[in-house]
Amino acid sequence: MAKRKLKRRQEKILGRKAGVKPGTVVVSTEAYKPRFFLMSFSDTYFEETELQSYHELMQHVKAHPEARHWIDIRGYGDQAMLEQLISDFGLHPLQMEDVINDYQRPKVEEFDDNRLFIITRMLRWSPEFRSLDDVQLSIFTGTNYVLTLQSDYGDCLDSLRERIRVGKGIIRTRPTMYMAYAILDVVLDYYFPVMAEIGQYIEDLEQKVLRQPSKSNLSEILDLKSELVKLRRIAWPERDLMNELLRMDDTTIPDSLKVYFRDAYDHAVQLIDLIENHREMSSSLVELYMSTVSNRMNEIMKVLTIISSIFIPLSFIVGLYGMNFSRENPETGRVFRYSMPELYEPYSYPILLALMATLILLQLYFFYRKGWFRSF
Amino acid sequence: MAKRKLKRRQEKILGRKAGVKPGTVVVSTEAYKPRFFLMSFSDTYFEETELQSYHELMQHVKAHPEARHWIDIRGYGDQAMLEQLISDFGLHPLQMEDVINDYQRPKVEEFDDNRLFIITRMLRWSPEFRSLDDVQLSIFTGTNYVLTLQSDYGDCLDSLRERIRVGKGIIRTRPTMYMAYAILDVVLDYYFPVMAEIGQYIEDLEQKVLRQPSKSNLSEILDLKSELVKLRRIAWPERDLMNELLRMDDTTIPDSLKVYFRDAYDHAVQLIDLIENHREMSSSLVELYMSTVSNRMNEIMKVLTIISSIFIPLSFIVGLYGMNFSRENPETGRVFRYSMPELYEPYSYPILLALMATLILLQLYFFYRKGWFRSF
Amino acid sequence: MAKRKLKRRQEKILGRKAGVKPGTVVVSTEAYKPRFFLMSFSDTYFEETELQSYHELMQHVKAHPEARHWIDIRGYGDQAMLEQLISDFGLHPLQMEDVINDYQRPKVEEFDDNRLFIITRMLRWSPEFRSLDDVQLSIFTGTNYVLTLQSDYGDCLDSLRERIRVGKGIIRTRPTMYMAYAILDVVLDYYFPVMAEIGQYIEDLEQKVLRQPSKSNLSEILDLKSELVKLRRIAWPERDLMNELLRMDDTTIPDSLKVYFRDAYDHAVQLIDLIENHREMSSSLVELYMSTVSNRMNEIMKVLTIISSIFIPLSFIVGLYGMNFSRENPETGRVFRYSMPELYEPYSYPILLALMATLILLQLYFFYRKGWFRSF
Amino acid sequence: MAKRKLKRRQEKILGRKAGVKPGTVVVSTEAYKPRFFLMSFSDTYFEETELQSYHELMQHVKAHPEARHWIDIRGYGDQAMLEQLISDFGLHPLQMEDVINDYQRPKVEEFDDNRLFIITRMLRWSPEFRSLDDVQLSIFTGTNYVLTLQSDYGDCLDSLRERIRVGKGIIRTRPTMYMAYAILDVVLDYYFPVMAEIGQYIEDLEQKVLRQPSKSNLSEILDLKSELVKLRRIAWPERDLMNELLRMDDTTIPDSLKVYFRDAYDHAVQLIDLIENHREMSSSLVELYMSTVSNRMNEIMKVLTIISSIFIPLSFIVGLYGMNFSRENPETGRVFRYSMPELYEPYSYPILLALMATLILLQLYFFYRKGWFRSF
Amino acid sequence: MAKRKLKRRQEKILGRKAGVKPGTVVVSTEAYKPRFFLMSFSDTYFEETELQSYHELMQHVKAHPEARHWIDIRGYGDQAMLEQLISDFGLHPLQMEDVINDYQRPKVEEFDDNRLFIITRMLRWSPEFRSLDDVQLSIFTGTNYVLTLQSDYGDCLDSLRERIRVGKGIIRTRPTMYMAYAILDVVLDYYFPVMAEIGQYIEDLEQKVLRQPSKSNLSEILDLKSELVKLRRIAWPERDLMNELLRMDDTTIPDSLKVYFRDAYDHAVQLIDLIENHREMSSSLVELYMSTVSNRMNEIMKVLTIISSIFIPLSFIVGLYGMNFSRENPETGRVFRYSMPELYEPYSYPILLALMATLILLQLYFFYRKGWFRSF
Repeated sequence: MAKRKLKRRQEKILGRKAGVKPGTVVVSTEAYKPRFFLMSFSDTYFEETELQSYHELMQHVKAHPEARHWIDIRGYGDQAMLEQLISDFGLHPLQMEDVINDYQRPKVEEFDDNRLFIITRMLRWSPEFRSLDDVQLSIFTGTNYVLTLQSDYGDCLDSLRERIRVGKGIIRTRPTMYMAYAILDVVLDYYFPVMAEIGQYIEDLEQKVLRQPSKSNLSEILDLKSELVKLRRIAWPERDLMNELLRMDDTTIPDSLKVYFRDAYDHAVQLIDLIENHREMSSSLVELYMSTVSNRMNEIMKVLTIISSIFIPLSFIVGLYGMNFSRENPETGRVFRYSMPELYEPYSYPILLALMATLILLQLYFFYRKGWFRSF
Repeated sequence: MAKRKLKRRQEKILGRKAGVKPGTVVVSTEAYKPRFFLMSFSDTYFEETELQSYHELMQHVKAHPEARHWIDIRGYGDQAMLEQLISDFGLHPLQMEDVINDYQRPKVEEFDDNRLFIITRMLRWSPEFRSLDDVQLSIFTGTNYVLTLQSDYGDCLDSLRERIRVGKGIIRTRPTMYMAYAILDVVLDYYFPVMAEIGQYIEDLEQKVLRQPSKSNLSEILDLKSELVKLRRIAWPERDLMNELLRMDDTTIPDSLKVYFRDAYDHAVQLIDLIENHREMSSSLVELYMSTVSNRMNEIMKVLTIISSIFIPLSFIVGLYGMNFSRENPETGRVFRYSMPELYEPYSYPILLALMATLILLQLYFFYRKGWFRSF
Repeated sequence: MAKRKLKRRQEKILGRKAGVKPGTVVVSTEAYKPRFFLMSFSDTYFEETELQSYHELMQHVKAHPEARHWIDIRGYGDQAMLEQLISDFGLHPLQMEDVINDYQRPKVEEFDDNRLFIITRMLRWSPEFRSLDDVQLSIFTGTNYVLTLQSDYGDCLDSLRERIRVGKGIIRTRPTMYMAYAILDVVLDYYFPVMAEIGQYIEDLEQKVLRQPSKSNLSEILDLKSELVKLRRIAWPERDLMNELLRMDDTTIPDSLKVYFRDAYDHAVQLIDLIENHREMSSSLVELYMSTVSNRMNEIMKVLTIISSIFIPLSFIVGLYGMNFSRENPETGRVFRYSMPELYEPYSYPILLALMATLILLQLYFFYRKGWFRSF
Repeated sequence: MAKRKLKRRQEKILGRKAGVKPGTVVVSTEAYKPRFFLMSFSDTYFEETELQSYHELMQHVKAHPEARHWIDIRGYGDQAMLEQLISDFGLHPLQMEDVINDYQRPKVEEFDDNRLFIITRMLRWSPEFRSLDDVQLSIFTGTNYVLTLQSDYGDCLDSLRERIRVGKGIIRTRPTMYMAYAILDVVLDYYFPVMAEIGQYIEDLEQKVLRQPSKSNLSEILDLKSELVKLRRIAWPERDLMNELLRMDDTTIPDSLKVYFRDAYDHAVQLIDLIENHREMSSSLVELYMSTVSNRMNEIMKVLTIISSIFIPLSFIVGLYGMNFSRENPETGRVFRYSMPELYEPYSYPILLALMATLILLQLYFFYRKGWFRSF
Repeated sequence: MAKRKLKRRQEKILGRKAGVKPGTVVVSTEAYKPRFFLMSFSDTYFEETELQSYHELMQHVKAHPEARHWIDIRGYGDQAMLEQLISDFGLHPLQMEDVINDYQRPKVEEFDDNRLFIITRMLRWSPEFRSLDDVQLSIFTGTNYVLTLQSDYGDCLDSLRERIRVGKGIIRTRPTMYMAYAILDVVLDYYFPVMAEIGQYIEDLEQKVLRQPSKSNLSEILDLKSELVKLRRIAWPERDLMNELLRMDDTTIPDSLKVYFRDAYDHAVQLIDLIENHREMSSSLVELYMSTVSNRMNEIMKVLTIISSIFIPLSFIVGLYGMNFSRENPETGRVFRYSMPELYEPYSYPILLALMATLILLQLYFFYRKGWFRSF
């Protein structure tokens, strides 16, 4: 019953000012102050904490070299910290530039020592507000850590954190690459309820258009199409990303994990299927709109034509007998025998009424035969 | 004569809750209680039975190690049984997750010991109700068994069972992989009568649209297009599946069976051909609808225009002679010679009638020349 | 001058009943009784005859092991004969199933001893009846024979037979593979006059639509599109077939023959070109239809608008002076000076006529300026 | 200012009669009598001449074995000469069949001794007549000759001939393969001015449609689209041809010439770009046409609606006071007080006029507010 | 608030006159006189200057063999200089022909000694004038120089120059190939603000069309589509160019630079994404336009139909009582009892008024029920 609404998001366009040195890491003044979250765990050890500074974070990490760490930094508003990250984790300035410019296509890059730099896009979406937003999540993997970076504080990974906290199971004992997979998988799974919602939205829109097409439907369809174009621009590279991960050799991604990435790949393909399906249906919506409008035009024209066709000839007839042709020469008084003699017959009026009624009935029958009353 | 109806199926969307551990096998409370069917056969031995429990089933299977078994489990409503399956048959939890989530694309995965995990989608369709439904069928192959799983009790494999029962022939003596082929082949063959039905449905719809386009046709076309989009989303991966099977090496699928898979592949390609064909025709239906509506609009407008063009000018003329211009100055009695002198002529009225009749004939001739009467 | 007509053929859909054992050769009771034709030739010997039975046919073939034979069996209505064929020529039951189900895509399969199984589709078409039909022709090649099978009696290979009869030339001395090529080539060449005919048909349809679009044009366009979709579904695999033949190794198809298959491949590509071209033009026809209908609507509306715009205001004016406002108080006799004084002026009537004529001229000028008279 | 006109060319369809032996060289009786042109040149020697017979031509060629020759035969109307060509130059009868059937796609074939058989299509086009025609040019290369054949006398190679005559430079000293390149390059370059012309034509058409869409525009657009479809069917294989030449090995095309073929390849790609661009624009033209027609319909309807909405209600009002309800009982003379008392008031008429004027103004304001006057 | 305007650029078509010798470097008389800019730098040395002549330029370059040079020549109006360039830098005449004909697709060619010849297209665009123009930039790389050529004086590389001047950093110490990358990167980055602008333009256009579709919107949409087609024809080869650079071996482009080219490649892909997105939205605009026009037509028709349906029947009624049927035989004085007796009843008039008011209300209710008042 709630009114669904898809609002078109503003397009994010490549942000680097033309001519700025590639690999320049310049943080906008509006960037969020960074917050530092850490989850450390091994078979025997588990710690989850928010740190006050980057320095403190690194100390925690170094204090437990035997453990695995999920270093989760949110917000980029600290240039010094970013540069420290580059040197501490051995990143390339171009990578950091990709991280802080929130417009990248999903992709994966392998760099030295079998480490991966992955960019994926989280969909954030709240059912109450029906707002749809996508935010970039950057992932760096290392031997004993996974480093994730995002531009603001909210994410869609809480369910994964809960799994790590609760489950003493697989995730704590697997290589860090499994951790990376788990993050990618959660991000991808998050698209599906959105797809279901959009599917429902399309069916609702279709019903609205069929019942009563209105101008606002048109912009709704356009917003929908635009939204689906953008989702598609995320989903395809997301699939390519999974495919590239699948094809990496054993040293980077152990074969024992391939089955998981294969599963994620299948999900990405299904996502694309759904998006393409929704796109086709939204294209059909435009046709439906056009057809329904044409249909209504036909109905309107039928009303006009039926009424006009019946009454315009009748108006002529009654106008005919409203003419003032004189019955006699006003000067000589000679009677004009052919000047509207009907007017002076006793039953002319009822005969005329009967004739007009017959004419109406004939026309109604004609329109009925042509099926003009059927579609009302 | 029966009224055909295609009802759009509700879209199934990836069911795993985002954030749930991949490979988690959690059965919905609405899942069907499992039923266990077994067909065991060898050259000399044949048994077909429904078992009461999973335990009983496995005993039967183990009792005849020399025979081949088609283990057919329908319904997933028993979590313990599913976990037992994983350990007994050496499956991966992710595979079982795929099995119980009834939304997978057709696919094939090879896993240890040349075993195959195949997902295909059965179309279920009853000609009386014209309802169309697709259900996932999961197939695991082993050295001496084929294990099939599906979410509810009905399937489209009865003809195959009959063949096994009756025929002492090929199927009982071939490797289990032939059994897997036979299942896939029956599933695929089941699409073709549906295609023929849809083809007929399209032609009927076309006739209806041509004769009398109505609003309901529009939603019928839209449902049809949506249904074809979904069938296409099944058929393409079904073809890929066959192609992958064809390319597998001799140890997994013996070369002697390749000719059968090649045949199945040809059928999948033909299925895609038919779906694409139907899709093109259903797109043409929208154009046809639009054109027919435009055409009818033209007809309606012609009726209006012919009648208006004839009678509106005539109404003006009779209105003209209905004016009350005084023939003389009421005070002085002076006669106005130019004030509607036509009214006081003896033959004005019949002359006017003749003029109006001429006008009507001229207009009818004009409309006839423009061909406006032809398309009625 | 003859009225061209494209009639949509009924779609043939995969005929095997789901669940029937693959490779089952079950002949329909409506199948044609087989007829047996044989052409045997070597450098020195030539015989062409119709045999009464399969047995007789095989005797003839065996009597001349040194010659090359074109065994041409038409009609499948003899189950025993078909099974005999399988064993005599070493065919696979699945191949025979493909042969008798007249719905296969063109394809080529290589089987043991470098033999080929080719399916192609003959177009049969008679210029008088403008009927278009495609029939499957199955070809098996062997060392010294070519075996062709088709479901009924008529074919399009008479010109080839004539060539064999007359020409003492190449065809009699070449390997049987050349014979297979010659058949494929004749079948393919037969599509081109049909294409030319369809091209002419499209142009005629275009002219008809431009002159006077009618409802029947719509179904003609739809039939045309449907027909082209089906032709395309034949032509593409026909090209793939040629391509596969081209790529076969020297032992199957001698290199000296490759130049011929290359030529046939070129023809198949040209055929696809023509079909795609015709498809684009037929899509344009729908647009043309829609545009022409819109155009005619404009014309109709112009007629209505011009006539209504001119006469409706005039009707108002004459209605105005048809009002019965009293010139004087009927009781007191006081003259109402402002009650339609125009009626009592001597030149009111001619002045009014002049005014109305001016109004008409002004409107006509307005419509002329807007260019409404131009497109009639 | 000249009126541009694109005339649709008649499609050429594969000309061989089905069933005629492949490789049959049968010359139509309408074929042009052949003319023989020869350009012979070496570093030191240059001769350009037209010969009277094929015999004379071959003598000239043999007389200068050290020189390079461009043998240019135009017209195929001499069967004996064609057969002589096959034996003298070692051609395959299928090649000669391709040569004389003027419908081939551009292609290249390598045959014995690194010789090439190239088919390209010359566009012939004269700016005055705006006629567009494409003619097949067949090229055979040999060690010291290039043999070109075409079906009639005119070509577009004069500029190349002039270059050979004048320039003592590169072309005379390079291998004959350079000569082949030069011919292909000139042929290709000839397409670009035509493209520019068509681009201009599209813009003109667009202006015409925007200003005043007429029925003739529709067939112009259709002709344009058809023409572009055909050009595209030439351009794509022309690109493939260049690509194949580029990939040939050093013995066939020396590496030193590859840079030239690469350049020609770039040009072919640009040509395709332009054609696709023009095709997209011509598709937009149809949309533009439809939109403009709809727009004009809107305008027409506005005129009708404004005038009808204003005057039809007014006509009712004046009709109302034209009714003849009697003011008194004609027998008793009793005055009917409620029978149209307005008629007997002194200021009724001017009040009514004022009311009607107000109504007109209100309606005009309403239409103005809805923006109906803006788009005139 | 500023009025955005996209003006379609004139298409540049391959400029070489057909038949001119390939590789001919003929400068048009309208070409700009060349200007010579030089930036020379090494670790220790930096010089930026404009030279007066080509001779002077080369002297400067030769004077500092140890430094790296960016030789930047703008304008081609000096044939001798161009020929000198060919011999001094070892270029191929065909390359120089590509340089001076400003119509090339972006491409890269490797030639002797691992040198590259790159063509890219700069977009030049000023936000005030909203004019959009693309100009070819040709780049030759050598061991210690980068040579750029362009047809006129303005470019978009100032930001890069500033970086070289200011930054003592990377660019001055890297190999010249990094310099080439930097130029390509700046050129590419320049497309993104234009994309953002076009995105905004599309949204504005969409709003305008939704509010009040006008004829001018149509040509705006057409210009937009045409512009996007052209941008796409630049962006795709720009991506191919980057891809080819990425795949070059280590000797041509050092592996240490590959990460930069990979980044540029990503940008090119994003650019294509944006263009395709904009193209889809601009196609939707046409549909939007058509739909809005149809919608408005519906509104217009509703106004007409409501008013006509109400007043045309009423006009008939009042016309009816305006008839002049005589109440008595004028000669005998016999009263006609059935001749419009209503006229002589005392309350006929108010009853008729009430009836007509009821009719109006009924019709308004009918139209309200059909929802005709909703969309105004």
